[in-house]
Amino acid sequence: MGVNMTPERPEAQVIAIAGLGLIGGSLARRLTERGRRVIAWNHRPAPYDRARAAGIECVDDVAELARAVPDVLVLCTPLKAMPDVLRQLAPVMDPHTVLADVGSVKGQVRDEVKAVGLDDCYVGAHPMAGNEFSGYAASDPSLYDDALWAVTFDERTSYERLLVVVDMICEGVGDRIIVIDDDTHDRAAAMISHMPHVVSTALANELTEMPERNIAQALAAGCWRDMTRVALTDPDRTRAMVEEDAANVARLLHHMGERLESMAALLESGDDTALAQVREFFAVAHPYREYKARERAGVEHESVTVRIDGDDENGTAGATESGRSTWRDRLLASARRGEHITHMTDRNTAIAEIRTALVS
Amino acid sequence: MGVNMTPERPEAQVIAIAGLGLIGGSLARRLTERGRRVIAWNHRPAPYDRARAAGIECVDDVAELARAVPDVLVLCTPLKAMPDVLRQLAPVMDPHTVLADVGSVKGQVRDEVKAVGLDDCYVGAHPMAGNEFSGYAASDPSLYDDALWAVTFDERTSYERLLVVVDMICEGVGDRIIVIDDDTHDRAAAMISHMPHVVSTALANELTEMPERNIAQALAAGCWRDMTRVALTDPDRTRAMVEEDAANVARLLHHMGERLESMAALLESGDDTALAQVREFFAVAHPYREYKARERAGVEHESVTVRIDGDDENGTAGATESGRSTWRDRLLASARRGEHITHMTDRNTAIAEIRTALVS
Repeated sequence: MGVNMTPERPEAQVIAIAGLGLIGGSLARRLTERGRRVIAWNHRPAPYDRARAAGIECVDDVAELARAVPDVLVLCTPLKAMPDVLRQLAPVMDPHTVLADVGSVKGQVRDEVKAVGLDDCYVGAHPMAGNEFSGYAASDPSLYDDALWAVTFDERTSYERLLVVVDMICEGVGDRIIVIDDDTHDRAAAMISHMPHVVSTALANELTEMPERNIAQALAAGCWRDMTRVALTDPDRTRAMVEEDAANVARLLHHMGERLESMAALLESGDDTALAQVREFFAVAHPYREYKARERAGVEHESVTVRIDGDDENGTAGATESGRSTWRDRLLASARRGEHITHMTDRNTAIAEIRTALVS
Repeated sequence: MGVNMTPERPEAQVIAIAGLGLIGGSLARRLTERGRRVIAWNHRPAPYDRARAAGIECVDDVAELARAVPDVLVLCTPLKAMPDVLRQLAPVMDPHTVLADVGSVKGQVRDEVKAVGLDDCYVGAHPMAGNEFSGYAASDPSLYDDALWAVTFDERTSYERLLVVVDMICEGVGDRIIVIDDDTHDRAAAMISHMPHVVSTALANELTEMPERNIAQALAAGCWRDMTRVALTDPDRTRAMVEEDAANVARLLHHMGERLESMAALLESGDDTALAQVREFFAVAHPYREYKARERAGVEHESVTVRIDGDDENGTAGATESGRSTWRDRLLASARRGEHITHMTDRNTAIAEIRTALVS
């Protein structure tokens, strides 16, 4: 175990996992392998024999997870099952336990946590891990190898509880984190997944409704295959994902609509000024191309120290002239710089790698 | 060799190749392997030693290709080199020789062919073959394994010359064809490649200009990687490709802009009517998903006979009540039904496989 983050409980953390699917099952096995005590519940006991053989304690009732007073109780059920699980947990949660989750949208989960009055003990989490399979049978601790988690807060999140979740991820799972607010998470997820799913579907729709669709499809190669792959995934799941993040997706769809319409106008004009602007359009993404080239070249990650000053909630110490700087602002600024935190050296200091710095 | 399409020349075709890059070099080797006599020219003689070892005759001057009076002379140079090559060929082309090419836009090549007065002997062609490499060193006859070619015509194309190119591709190369007009080709290419390249770049631009770009990139997974892959390719090449097909790309960008803006409006509204329309949006591409599922399942290709009636240029015989049906209409209709012609059984009849039938 790494740095002792919670001096009143020097022993390894006890983690409860609600839901032994691909993500929850892999997490339970990973934590067990790395010496944590894991208690788990699943809506059906089917995976219990295999889970017990892997050293995971299994219980029949989700409320028993809370009654065991773990350091963290992680909700790993599908999003739609969370309200029901939260209703069963609410009456029996001990104030010691931090409630976390692995859901792919953070605003909606926090709203559901608030609805049962558990928001004081909640810290959001979302691991960038998964594959095309599902269920405990597909679980694999190596799913979390070198994975990044987004850990999310709101204005009421306790720094103490945040540290407990950071300890679980960095020391327990052995992964990296960025710490951001729920809305920043959901806007970023809209950008790199939810909105592009709509764009991919719109491309597939355009082809499907074209009279020469069979001719176009006959000429299609890698570009088309790549850009419509996610349009082939279960449209009901995609629709649910888009509707859960509707405002962010809508705003980005407007942006994209404007970008495409303005390129159309430039191509129709075709005069020298327009062609210069077409050239600019293709140059905008240059920092992104450079970043991807560095990534492909396997450039060493630079290591940096991040001062968080979490113990000064008002943040007057360490504040810049431009204003206050609480731990929230400092961690969000670190994430915006492309830093991924790998561990904490004390309560107020993190070590991070610069992994994704995109300058434009 | 297959069916004898040109009874006045019963021997195997003689093919001239201008340009021994990846596409031209692979084509020359493929035809040589399959028993055709191939004469080739390249703007630099660097590949000649290897080409000669592969049985390809190499000449120092592009005009010598025309003077050899081949059955087909195929332009395999980059698009921008074509005007110059065509100027050198024009004074020495024999009326026997059919001029063809492998360019990825067809309207522009035909305009350049017209500019030197060679349109009477021209038939367009575009093989769906290639990879990320270039040059003769990367050439490989298997690039043409089971490939599809678009063969293109305009209102002046001779059926006799079309048959010579069909023979070269189906019997000489051993590939499949669809026969369509230039504009249908360029609209289809805009749909599955040129326009999506702009969309991919617009996505990369949106991320690059977002203040939280590093956070978004940190959360990115397969969806984002797939949808921005072509934005990473040489932006100057992409820009040239888009500008060569500007009108078609612009029209499709308007369509896409409208699709994205209307989805944005539905997500912002969020009432029951809007959500029903969101559901419809995700259902439109269902025929495309079904087609891709059949493709993955490896469903057997149905074989059909296509009556072309090329010898009745006016098409009154075999015309439907709705109007005339020349060989142009019949071949275009076949391509629209998703049929890929594999060979001809006589001058007026083709055998095709149904490969891409997308019904909506």
